[in-house]
This record gives sequence, structure tokens and C-alpha cells, in this order.
Amino acid sequence: MSGRRSSDPPPSARVRALAGIAGAPGVAIGTAVVLGTQTLAYPRRHVVPQEFETEIGRFQDAVAQAQRDLREVAAQVGDRRAETSILEAYLLMMGDDALADAVKIQITEENRSAEWAVAAACASLAGRLALVNDPYLRERSHDIEFVGERLIRAFEGVPSPRTIPQMDGPSILVAHDLSPADTAALAGQPVIGFVTEVGTRTSHTSIMARALEIPAVVGVSDATQRIATGDLVVVDGMRGAVLVRPGPEELKAAHARADRHHAHARELSEGRDRAAVTADGVRVQLRANVELPAEAVLAREQGADGIGLYRTEFLYIDRASPPTEEQQFEIFRKVVQAMGPKPVTLRTFDIGGDKFVSTFPLPPEMNPMLGLRAVRLALSRPDVFLEHLRAMVRASAFGDVRIMIPMVAGLNELRQVRALLAQAQEEVRARGQACADEIPLGVMIEVPAAAVLVDHFAREAAFLSLGTNDLIQYALAVDRTSRSLAYLASPFDPSILRLILNVIRAGRDFSRPVCICGAMASDPLAAVLLLGLGMRDFSMEAAAIPEIKEALRRVSLAEAEQVAAEALSRATAEEVEACVAGAFAPRLCDLLASES
Amino acid sequence: MSGRRSSDPPPSARVRALAGIAGAPGVAIGTAVVLGTQTLAYPRRHVVPQEFETEIGRFQDAVAQAQRDLREVAAQVGDRRAETSILEAYLLMMGDDALADAVKIQITEENRSAEWAVAAACASLAGRLALVNDPYLRERSHDIEFVGERLIRAFEGVPSPRTIPQMDGPSILVAHDLSPADTAALAGQPVIGFVTEVGTRTSHTSIMARALEIPAVVGVSDATQRIATGDLVVVDGMRGAVLVRPGPEELKAAHARADRHHAHARELSEGRDRAAVTADGVRVQLRANVELPAEAVLAREQGADGIGLYRTEFLYIDRASPPTEEQQFEIFRKVVQAMGPKPVTLRTFDIGGDKFVSTFPLPPEMNPMLGLRAVRLALSRPDVFLEHLRAMVRASAFGDVRIMIPMVAGLNELRQVRALLAQAQEEVRARGQACADEIPLGVMIEVPAAAVLVDHFAREAAFLSLGTNDLIQYALAVDRTSRSLAYLASPFDPSILRLILNVIRAGRDFSRPVCICGAMASDPLAAVLLLGLGMRDFSMEAAAIPEIKEALRRVSLAEAEQVAAEALSRATAEEVEACVAGAFAPRLCDLLASES
Repeated sequence: MSGRRSSDPPPSARVRALAGIAGAPGVAIGTAVVLGTQTLAYPRRHVVPQEFETEIGRFQDAVAQAQRDLREVAAQVGDRRAETSILEAYLLMMGDDALADAVKIQITEENRSAEWAVAAACASLAGRLALVNDPYLRERSHDIEFVGERLIRAFEGVPSPRTIPQMDGPSILVAHDLSPADTAALAGQPVIGFVTEVGTRTSHTSIMARALEIPAVVGVSDATQRIATGDLVVVDGMRGAVLVRPGPEELKAAHARADRHHAHARELSEGRDRAAVTADGVRVQLRANVELPAEAVLAREQGADGIGLYRTEFLYIDRASPPTEEQQFEIFRKVVQAMGPKPVTLRTFDIGGDKFVSTFPLPPEMNPMLGLRAVRLALSRPDVFLEHLRAMVRASAFGDVRIMIPMVAGLNELRQVRALLAQAQEEVRARGQACADEIPLGVMIEVPAAAVLVDHFAREAAFLSLGTNDLIQYALAVDRTSRSLAYLASPFDPSILRLILNVIRAGRDFSRPVCICGAMASDPLAAVLLLGLGMRDFSMEAAAIPEIKEALRRVSLAEAEQVAAEALSRATAEEVEACVAGAFAPRLCDLLASES
Repeated sequence: MSGRRSSDPPPSARVRALAGIAGAPGVAIGTAVVLGTQTLAYPRRHVVPQEFETEIGRFQDAVAQAQRDLREVAAQVGDRRAETSILEAYLLMMGDDALADAVKIQITEENRSAEWAVAAACASLAGRLALVNDPYLRERSHDIEFVGERLIRAFEGVPSPRTIPQMDGPSILVAHDLSPADTAALAGQPVIGFVTEVGTRTSHTSIMARALEIPAVVGVSDATQRIATGDLVVVDGMRGAVLVRPGPEELKAAHARADRHHAHARELSEGRDRAAVTADGVRVQLRANVELPAEAVLAREQGADGIGLYRTEFLYIDRASPPTEEQQFEIFRKVVQAMGPKPVTLRTFDIGGDKFVSTFPLPPEMNPMLGLRAVRLALSRPDVFLEHLRAMVRASAFGDVRIMIPMVAGLNELRQVRALLAQAQEEVRARGQACADEIPLGVMIEVPAAAVLVDHFAREAAFLSLGTNDLIQYALAVDRTSRSLAYLASPFDPSILRLILNVIRAGRDFSRPVCICGAMASDPLAAVLLLGLGMRDFSMEAAAIPEIKEALRRVSLAEAEQVAAEALSRATAEEVEACVAGAFAPRLCDLLASES
């Protein structure tokens, strides 16, 4: 099993445990297959004005070729796979005017050959995205890189796509990064684990691996250098660790851990069809947070009670102009129909400051998290916002659509959006297009001022949705992307509990549904605490739903309420967490372990 | 009075009203004297390694000469003027090792002559400060420029300082900027107004002008180009406007406005010795916010009940290493003695992220306002923080010293600072040095989490001080320096009122003093609202004290409480402000006008 084949470069015999990020849970033990990391060799030459037209033509041919190639891959994958919609997104990106314009500028102003122009344009677009503060959007820089790579490979004379070697037995695929095209090309091969050098929990490799239920560790520095094809490898997708050439003891432990995970996964899987109820029979709603259309498939498979947060930011990224109403409507309609009859809560775009890449020119800000974001930006551009709202309004004819406003700080913002939504509905009806009579309009409670003033919001909004990631960031004044201050930004901070309780109570007082869609909802201990505080509606990453369902099934509401009451009297985050963990960690420890 | 003398360049006859920033209140009408804006002509030549030593020697001679010159100016000014301590700060900056090191690097690595090296080093230091987010600290970049100018003028062969022309009658001084040395050199001249091209309300020109009670408009673009020596000029320091060559009607209106201001100022001045009591006899404390030692003089003159916020950031700016305990102690002792027996609340340094220029190397942050600031930075560097605390502890032997911690987000931070303060006291006592037995340790309430959890803080802190500038910024998630979002960041936002009320109540429940030191306290309408919410202790820019005292004398507590109760029921900032203005604006309009 651990037989070594010849490999290049020879791995150091001492390299054993490589640290990375847990991308998809599970433990896989198998033989490594390392994909080459050669950079593409393409002609980089300066061109003269007489050649501009030829080069632009070559670029357009390459786009057409790359799109044909991708469609072929998509056809192999078939209809039901989550990859399909990502491949579709790639097709769109390849044909986008913004990219074509950037390439043309590279050719005509920088005098670069078409391949070079594509590489430069994509590197520039990817580089800008890589600076973005939001981890979801930052990940999209890899997509641009992939698109660039596919395009360059589509030029004549450039080596064709890397071939994925035929695998003999259960294999662990090790690569710098895996594109959806790569993973699609793997269909039918016995791949049982992924290791990549780049990526995070929200990168496509991780999302796909979770969808395929294949363990993955991403963000492993120099993995392709430190692992050789033929090495025996253990991929621990819970701990985010990769063991290379483990000894007999380590191997035994890994097998035991894999067995435990399988038993646990089987149990959770059986639980998917069980009701989301507490031990004393209280029903809770478990919904999915979705960023890409592809994730809706996963959400349905995990038994989500609808989509509690549908992010629409991806529509606006790396485009010279906003998407048309029609394009948006098509995307919304598909998701709404896919989830039907379960509800889909569409969140209006949460972009701005550093999150807004090219649709509008905006000045740079010193503190983009405290800047012109989300509803603030939307209200400053009612033309763009109305198109967005009309697309949502039209989708409401196809299912249970709700609309939610991010970053609301004051009631005036809700009132202004309500007026614009009414206008959008009128405009849609005036065209003779269908839409729901009443579309619930709710607000995200994620700015501390809104949490403090939530009774006023509850009076005027159809529902409230707690965005705890931002709420924690602002209430504690800690940048959510800061590592050195992560110790301060705890969801167990007593101030956060008080604000959440305030929101839940306002919801009760005014009979408004209250949902939580922050990362806090997918932490088993925090979820139990939220239950005790009165929360009944949780929205989270689809992959976390089975675990949270299981966690809530193991506790009774009565207990959770008692512990929450105790936690509310504590003065620090550490004291709160100790209180909750003391009561529930023993019962949830298997779920907590697979979370890390 | 409007006789024109020959001038260069000839002003456009159509230029009439120039907009700027109100630097110091009052209306001045007089003849312009425009100071030259010539840039210094100094040799810029490349030097060879053999000359390095000579150039470094020339730099050191220039420093010595510049310091002698400045001491001479300081001697002319005498002891009682606010300028003295600023001149002292300049002397320190000239002798600072960080500057010397930067100049030496310019000479030995960039091969620049000493004058050029000084100009380049100062430009680089000033440039870095100009990027800082905090308006107070940003202003300090002008100080560096002045220091560089004085140093370059101290080289042999460089023209001597600009001479200020002898003035015949009441004159308005127009300049690109005025250094304290310039204003010191004006002593005895009949200057009745200032106009500068740069500066803000917190720049030295403004602070000095308010101390000297001379109207000033700062930040007037191209003032030295658009006004000629001999022009009749009206400086409106309330409206931040400058009228050039006004017509008879405009002149008449300006005189009327000047008269009204004088009457108003006289009235306020008479009120300085009156008690700070409401119309129904409730005593309030009016304290001063102080940034530079020089401002303590102004605070005393305005009859402040002590210093409610003594900022210590200036100690750390543009230094290669933190100031020594001894240096800090001397500065604290002077302020404490100057204010004695009134209390002085020393705030531990509120620096970090973008505010921390050179003392520590810190990585850049995406959102510095949400970053490693203030107490977070202090706790990450206990060595530097203990020196700071020991200097404060030693100053406590000389008066009523209180210590206040900025940016506290959780109780653990207060507990850790308390432990360090106890250690600092022990260390000071172990050396046989004197200090107060008990030094009250309080917290700024400026992070929303602290305002929400304020009962816990009130239990453990000696006092609470509301920092409404940051509280508004974080609670509403609006960068306080953002112009486009200023509409959202209102002190009248109902969420802010609730948080303030929460803090005042916690203070009462636990018998802890509650003070407010945000800009909100110096707005007459907001101050009356705060009174009604239960606030009795206000700290503000010294120049605002007479006006706020007058405002509070005109209203009764009973009325203020009634209006506050009404305001608390409103749903938006606009509704709150309308409610308060409706009740009090007619009575306070003269105070409101001179605020703008």
C-alpha cells in the first residue's frame, strides 16, 4: 500500500505532517497522485499596430474554442452535479465584455500578443479581487485565474490541458489548485481525497468536495513539492492535516478515525430525513446560506427548510456594467424553482467599498467595513437597485420569495427600500408580468444601532434576520478579518447575547419571524445557546445542517433555556462559553470535533 | 479704509467671498497683510562619501542654531502664553533621534547635501502623518514641515526667516500657514484676524487664534493668491467665510455682525465666572478636553472644572522609540499642577493601526478603526504601557489624577489594566517615589459592546466616560471621517440615546461618576438633551465651555427631562433632532449660530 514509485522531486523522508485548512470532513487514506504545476508556456511578444486586428481575432477565436471545450466538459458531467452551474459561470466570464475590453487594451495600448494580453488582463482582474476583504469574493480571484488558464490553453500552439493520470486504486489528488473543470474531468476515477496548496473553507474545491463528500485539506503550502506521486497519504479533513508516509501506529489511528467518521456520517445521514426537533419535541427551522446557484443543490440534498440567505454579490463582481434585470431574474427564478415550495430569502446586494470591483467607480475608503456598503450604496444608485428589485419581484411569481436588506442602520433606509420595492412591483405589473401580491421585506440586524433599536424595526419590517458576523465585528469594534484580534470577536460575548435577546424579544412582541444567518448558527454550542435564547430559525452553510440538526436533537429546550439564562448573567465571553460548554460539550463533543 | 496699495499678483476684481473653515469665532474687518509664500531656496546637490561627515556636521550645527533661534523667540513670548509649550515641542522634535537618523540616511544612502536631506526627511515624516485617520494627529504633519523649514533656514547661506511687515493699523494676516513661531513674532502688532490656506478647527492656528480671541478662517484655498496686501477683508470666523473688498452693504452687515458677536462674547465672558447651573439651579461640571499641554492654559482661562480628557497620543508620534517615563512624568506633572486642585483625567494612549507612526512596527490593517488600537495595543506591549502608567502614577502625587482606558471592549481588558496599574504603583513605591494611595481607574464607553454591558463595567470601574465620537462610528457602522456617510452618523440617532441612557443608569445604579467627552457635549442642543437624559458632567474643547455653560443656564432640568423623554420615543435621528430643536432652538439660536 505504501509502495513508492519513482517521483520527481524526491520528497524529504522526514516530512510527515502538513498543516492546512479543513476543506471537507472525513478521513481518507490512499496513494497520492500529484498533478503537475508547470506554468503555461505561451508566446510573449510585442506586437505592432498592424497586428492588433489579427491578435484581437485570435483572442476571439480562443474564447470560442475555450467555451466549446468547457461545454464538452459540462456535457460529460451531466445535469445533476453542482459543478454544472460553476462551469456555466465560467462560460459567462469568458464571454464577458469587461474581460474582452481589458484584453483589447492590453493588445492595443501595451502592444502585447493575444496570449500575453489574456494573461495580463486576468492577472490584473484576479489581483484586484485578491485584495477584497470578503473571503467569499476573494476566492473568486482563483476563478479568474482558471478562466485565464483555460483561455490561454485554447490558443493554437499552447499545450493542451493537463491530463489527469489514470488511477489504479483509491487515490488522493494533490494539486496546486483544482478547477471545477479538473474535478469534472475526474468523474469515474477512484479519487477519495483532495489536497490543494491554495483555497479556504469557502473556495470551490472545498464546496465541491463537501458536495461530493470527499475529504479535503486545502491551503497546504508546497503540497505538490512535499508529496510525491505514490506516497501513502492520510487526508484528515476534520483537523485540516495531511500525513505523508505515516508509520504503522499513525496509520492504525487514521483508520480508526476514518471508521469513527464513517459511523458518524452514516448516523448524520440517516438523520437527514429526521425532523429538526429538540429532544423535547420543539420544531426548529434549518435553512441554508447560499452564495452560488450551485450550492442550492447541496442545500436541497442536506434537507434545508429553504434558503435563509441567498447572497447576490456574485452578480456584480468583475463586470464593467451591472447585470441586466433579465439575467438576474433568470438566476433568481432557477433558485426559487429549485427550492420550491420552500422559501428563498434573497438578500439585496451587500457590496461596496472594497467589495465592489468594477460596476461603479468608487473612491477608496480608509475603513471600508464602515463605509459605503450594501443598502447605503443601493440607495445611492436607485437605478441599479430598481433593476435588482424588479428581478426579485418577477422571481416571486415562481415560489416563496422574501427580500432582505443588508447593513440597515436606520429606519429611513427601510422606508426608502420599501418605497422602491413598491415602485418595482408597479413597474413589473405595468408590463403585464406576474409577481406575488405581497413580498415580505425584512431587514438584516447586523449594525449595532439596528439591534438596539430593533423594536422600531420590528414594527415596520416583515421579518428580522440576525447577521452575527457583522454584528460582532461592529459591536466589539473588531475587523472580522483580523487574526491578531480574533480573541476579542467571540459570538459568546455577553454583549452579543444581550443584543440577540433584544432582537428575539422584539420579534415576539411584534409577531415577526426572527432568523439567524451568521456563522454562529453553524457552531453546535452556539446553536444550542441560541435555541435557549429563543431562536427557532437558523440559516447556515448547507454542509453544516446535518450536524446542527443532530446537536439540537440531543438537547431539550428546557435545558437550553436554563443554560441560556445562566449564560446571560456572565460578564465575559470566556465565562459564557465555559457555562455553555460545561452543560453541553460532553454531549456534543463528536459534533464539535468534526467542526474544527 | 478700502484704499488699495500696489500688490503682486493683482487680485481679480470679481473675487469676493472665499469659503473656508471656521477656525476661531468673531468677525474682523481690516486691511490684509499677505505673507510671502516663497519656497526656500537651498542647495540640492549630490555629495560623495568623503563629504558625509561634513554634511552630518553641518546638519548638527543647523539643529543647534535653530534651537537657539527658537529659544530666543520663546524668551520674547514670555511665560504665560500658550505658544510656549508648542515651541518647546518644536525644540524636542528638532533634537529627536528619529529625525537625526532619517537625515543621516538621506545623506549617506541617498548622497544628498544636508539641507536637501533635512527637506526630504521631513517631507517623508510629514507625508506619513498626513495619511493618518485622526484629524488631530494629521495636523501634526504641519508641525514637521515647520520644523524642517526652521532647520533649513538655520543653515548658513539660506535666507533668514520671513520677516513680518510692520503693520500700520488693524490688520488681517493672510498666509499659507502660520507657525507658532510666526504668531509669537506677531506679539505687539495690531493683528485682528487670521486667514490661512491650510488647517482645520484642530490645527495650531485655530487653537492659538481661539486662545488669543482673534477671529480666524482656515483652509481657504489659494488665499494668498486671491487676497492682496492692502485689500479690505472681512474675516467671519463663525461662518468660515472671508469677504474680499466688500461693498458698502456687505460692510455694513459685517459691522453689525461683528457688534453682535462682541456683545455676545462679552456676555459669555461675564458668564465665565458664573456658576455652571441650570435655570432651576442644578449644578453641572464642565471640563476640558486637552490634547497639547498648551491647551491646559486655555482650559483654566475658560473656567473649566478640570480636565475630563487629557489625550496622550502626542507623546508617541514621530519617535523612533517611546518617550521615557521621566519625560512623560514631567509633562503629566506640569498639567496636573497647572490645573490643581481640579481633577485631571489622563487617558492612556489611544494609538494603533493608522495612528501609530513609528514607535512600533505594525502591519497595515484593512480597517484600522476596527484594528489593533488603544488598550488592545497597550496590552500587547506591557513594557511600554507600564512606563506610561508609572509616569501617570508619579504625577498623582501632585494633584487629583484619574486614569481612563480607551476602546475597552470587554471586562478582561479592564481587569488586565488594573493589574498593570497596581504593578506600576508598587514599582513606583519600591523606588521610594510618591504617589496617591488610590488612583481612580475608569473606562471610556465608546465600543458598543461596552455600552451594552455597561452594568458589568460600572461594577468594576471607578468611573465611566462616554466617547460618543467612536460610539456613533461603531454603533452605526459609519467611518467618522467619511463625508459621504456623515448623514448617517448623527448624535441624535435614537440608538445612541438609548446606549447613553443605559450608561447613565448604570452609573447611578452603581454610584459611579459618568462623564461625556465626545464632540456631542459641545453642541448646545445635544448638551441640553444629555442633561435631560441625566448627564451632569461634560468635557469638551475648552473654547466651547462658555457657550455650553450659557446654554445650560437657559434651560431648566425639568424641561430638559421632559424633552428627553419625548425624544427617546422617536424612531429616527431626524425626529429626535426636530423634537429637541422644537423645544430649545429658539432659546439657543444665538449659541447655535456661533457654533457653525
